[in-house]
Amino acid sequence: MARSGDSIDVRVQRSKAAVLAQTYELLSAGGIGGVSIDEVSRRSGVSKTTIYRHWPSRAALLVEACSTIGSAPPVPDTGSFGGDLAALTEELAEQLRSARWAAVLPSIVDAAEREPELAGLHADLHARLMAPFGVVTERARARGELAADRRQDDVSAAVAGPLFYRRWYSREPLDSAFVRRVVEDALVRLR
Amino acid sequence: MARSGDSIDVRVQRSKAAVLAQTYELLSAGGIGGVSIDEVSRRSGVSKTTIYRHWPSRAALLVEACSTIGSAPPVPDTGSFGGDLAALTEELAEQLRSARWAAVLPSIVDAAEREPELAGLHADLHARLMAPFGVVTERARARGELAADRRQDDVSAAVAGPLFYRRWYSREPLDSAFVRRVVEDALVRLR
Repeated sequence: MARSGDSIDVRVQRSKAAVLAQTYELLSAGGIGGVSIDEVSRRSGVSKTTIYRHWPSRAALLVEACSTIGSAPPVPDTGSFGGDLAALTEELAEQLRSARWAAVLPSIVDAAEREPELAGLHADLHARLMAPFGVVTERARARGELAADRRQDDVSAAVAGPLFYRRWYSREPLDSAFVRRVVEDALVRLR
Repeated sequence: MARSGDSIDVRVQRSKAAVLAQTYELLSAGGIGGVSIDEVSRRSGVSKTTIYRHWPSRAALLVEACSTIGSAPPVPDTGSFGGDLAALTEELAEQLRSARWAAVLPSIVDAAEREPELAGLHADLHARLMAPFGVVTERARARGELAADRRQDDVSAAVAGPLFYRRWYSREPLDSAFVRRVVEDALVRLR
């Protein structure tokens, strides 16, 4: 079927997809500061009026464009807290090394310091990214593998903290020896 | 002495100080994206030509304006690695809770992902911030208080990692109970 014959609904979906794709492109290239409705309109060929009809604000557009960022990997089920934590941590390290969201997240963290709507976006992304750690922690607690006074927040901070520190602050390589030490150290303290 | 009678050198110093102060103001209010030479010129009353005479680029101006950010606190000397690490970590937590640089650093981390000159700025700030951890770690090693296979990088990642995670990612309060647990956990693993 020729494009001119497409239903209005199909054309609307195609416009929205183009706008979201260009928003994510700009976000990847220049961070949140690099996304303007003018530029998204120019690149996607969708008018600003149409963009604003679908998303009432730049923040709303950013929220939807980021909705696939850091989508959580499947939760491992190796039978032990140690095995699950190692698998999850290695997957997180791999994403920090190579996923596009790892270069985009700092601009969202920065925006969250100042813009409440984007602080909400950041909170959602963070919750989604860390959710699997919650699942394996609760499972370990149910099996009695976790010290009684330890909460999921401690597990996440003990594992993700050092990984994030290396990726975005000391900017050292996230090599597998480091990742292994982080997991072993966390297990010594949390079990 | 009236201002009109000031030497050229004094006037130059006063202009530079005004430019640096306004740059830091804009940085605090809106992150690196909020700093433009136009706006710094407007607010400081110093012409763009003069600004560019002192700083060849916006990045060079940002580097100098940030030179006092995260200036390292005095290195504690309590006589033990545990005491020193606790004192340093509490001071870092206090700065993360209240210092202005804690709201500015995310924009520098973000810029470091894309702009090499600002990656250099970030590396300098980070090195300055973490330097005291290096001093107390080396002292502990000399006294035989540290496991032989542990490097300063591990100490920094084990302590600053969870603190940074709470401040900028999970955005939970950096309460003193959490800070104490981070120090105790680090000591269990590193000693």
